[in-house]
Amino acid sequence: MSSPTPWPALRVTYIVTASNQSDLDARVESLLLEQTVELPRVALRDKFVLENILGRLISVKAMDATKYSVIIDFPIIATADDPAQFLNVLFGNSSIQEHVMLADFELPTDWPGRKRALPGPQFGTAGLRKITGVPDRALTSTALKPIGLSNERIAQLCGLFAQAGVDVIKDDHGLANHSFHPFVERVRGCQKMVREANKASGRKSIYAPNLTGTPTVVLEQLKVAQEEGVGAVMIAPMLLGMPFMAEIVAQHAKLPILGHPSFSGATRISPEALFGKLFPLYGADATIFANFGGRFAYSKETCGQIASALTKPAISQLTPTLPMPAGGIKYHQVADVLSFYGREVILLIGGGLYEAGNDQALRARAEEFVRHVAEFK
Amino acid sequence: MSSPTPWPALRVTYIVTASNQSDLDARVESLLLEQTVELPRVALRDKFVLENILGRLISVKAMDATKYSVIIDFPIIATADDPAQFLNVLFGNSSIQEHVMLADFELPTDWPGRKRALPGPQFGTAGLRKITGVPDRALTSTALKPIGLSNERIAQLCGLFAQAGVDVIKDDHGLANHSFHPFVERVRGCQKMVREANKASGRKSIYAPNLTGTPTVVLEQLKVAQEEGVGAVMIAPMLLGMPFMAEIVAQHAKLPILGHPSFSGATRISPEALFGKLFPLYGADATIFANFGGRFAYSKETCGQIASALTKPAISQLTPTLPMPAGGIKYHQVADVLSFYGREVILLIGGGLYEAGNDQALRARAEEFVRHVAEFK
Repeated sequence: MSSPTPWPALRVTYIVTASNQSDLDARVESLLLEQTVELPRVALRDKFVLENILGRLISVKAMDATKYSVIIDFPIIATADDPAQFLNVLFGNSSIQEHVMLADFELPTDWPGRKRALPGPQFGTAGLRKITGVPDRALTSTALKPIGLSNERIAQLCGLFAQAGVDVIKDDHGLANHSFHPFVERVRGCQKMVREANKASGRKSIYAPNLTGTPTVVLEQLKVAQEEGVGAVMIAPMLLGMPFMAEIVAQHAKLPILGHPSFSGATRISPEALFGKLFPLYGADATIFANFGGRFAYSKETCGQIASALTKPAISQLTPTLPMPAGGIKYHQVADVLSFYGREVILLIGGGLYEAGNDQALRARAEEFVRHVAEFK
Repeated sequence: MSSPTPWPALRVTYIVTASNQSDLDARVESLLLEQTVELPRVALRDKFVLENILGRLISVKAMDATKYSVIIDFPIIATADDPAQFLNVLFGNSSIQEHVMLADFELPTDWPGRKRALPGPQFGTAGLRKITGVPDRALTSTALKPIGLSNERIAQLCGLFAQAGVDVIKDDHGLANHSFHPFVERVRGCQKMVREANKASGRKSIYAPNLTGTPTVVLEQLKVAQEEGVGAVMIAPMLLGMPFMAEIVAQHAKLPILGHPSFSGATRISPEALFGKLFPLYGADATIFANFGGRFAYSKETCGQIASALTKPAISQLTPTLPMPAGGIKYHQVADVLSFYGREVILLIGGGLYEAGNDQALRARAEEFVRHVAEFK
């Protein structure tokens, strides 16, 4: 399995937990398929897909009795040179599987689309040192906080830190466009204080406002910040969306970006809260989640709670939406699954249909799936 | 502590792990402070902040020997009626702490800004049933896959499923704007097949393309999809950014949204890969992460690896950037921290300065911080 790949590859190291060899084999195979083709191997018949899309297992090494370091190469073309799809290939669905952790990855050296997908930092160390006028020592930084102060007070604090000689004075990541310290006035006030302190001291302290909100709001904030001449901006990309940060950097920002880790551990949201509440609150009319008994690990109880939260929202005035359980449902198990969810559901079956074989078999199985659902009482 | 809160509250249930009472007390206090003011209690002096921003502990209940259900009320005004800041208050920095899990939350009933922050589903069950013409049974769904097929083949599969009577035929979430199946032609081809099948059958099957990429790209895809008359679209909000989905729903989408769970377990990315590689690849010039020994749990080794990945990027052509360790660094420990990171670093100290007291003390401590760094050899 470890012959060199015939295409430029994204090489990913996962840590896979398994209690025995057959578990391990199954999990490694599933991981390899999940991140690109997301179909059972038996359902893969297209030559281009088999040769150019399917990943290749490079190595499996035991780390201890139950943990294995698994290296897989994925063809870089699977990423479509797109920042969202790159993350999806790297750790999309597999991120949901309890027994998989993304440990590391390497980009191919020959990837002409890399900058289109992933802009990389535009200023970096050299740019930050130049802007702050600090050629060689470590830089200092502090935060303007807490949220709830007046803009006058925040600007005063900013001036205090600039006078004290702190290099990078950033907003706390909790400072949004609150009514009690609206963004535009805050940025103007802070930047004025930094400018005045710098003028007096000869230093080049910078103020870095926190950009947060939806893309339209954030781009407007960036525009204001740049017009006011701030030295950098702060963004929490796991909160705003990693692909959005990439677009900001590639297309809009003319200054350095400070990346903030907020929301980066977001998986520790219970599935009930994430899929049952947050997805609909942010606007989803149907929410896909991993069905019990499939290749992901949610319990029947968890699935029931997600479905119930979607179909009978506890949040007042929120319209009911449809659960869309998926992942390993077999076409002949439809009645069982419906007995559990009832009729307020979209049953999503993918691989379970494609396994049927050629188009005639696939059509027959799809019809059977449709019939099972129609006939269910 | 459990008197009713004087303001409309976001009530959040966290599960906190602690091995003894003093650990528990410290972790609960830290959690309460972390999600809004992010300062030690001793540094909170502003009356408005104390009365209107600081959260209130409602209850702590033991679930077993080491797990506790902790309910905290946060003032809803802390969310600024903004979708990104809402997530930040709900589970921003605390998501990074190993011993905290977000279990559940409740919105206040009296929150006039709710729809501005969180649009909620616009179509829901009723809309999806109407669009698909399925008044009461469960709906059926399948996916077009794998990536790597030609657009002709994908459209053919879409037609096959529509003829078989599947209600919702969605793109696999891995179908992006790949060169081998570009988005616009794919959507046109699939939608044509569905239209023709529906015409012949009298059914109302729908095709739901996968929207993915940066905001600009996704909005363009949405426009095309809507012009072609598709019945719904699919979005993976944890991949694209939850606030972006909210904006799409509130401002752009005239059709139902299927929410996909890809990347929703993203915390199982090692900190080295997430902060050391992904943040700079997506464009961060400096990356804030939790320093060792502070209130987050990274080891010295992990911090060293993150810093090394940022300052000496292994990815060719990527400019070096600055690590920005933060979280509990004390101003008098600067030399220790610098001994570890060297000079290619931005030291970020927040609470450790604010603890000093009034503005005079704060200024003196900030100057001392600056001097420690300047004098470090």
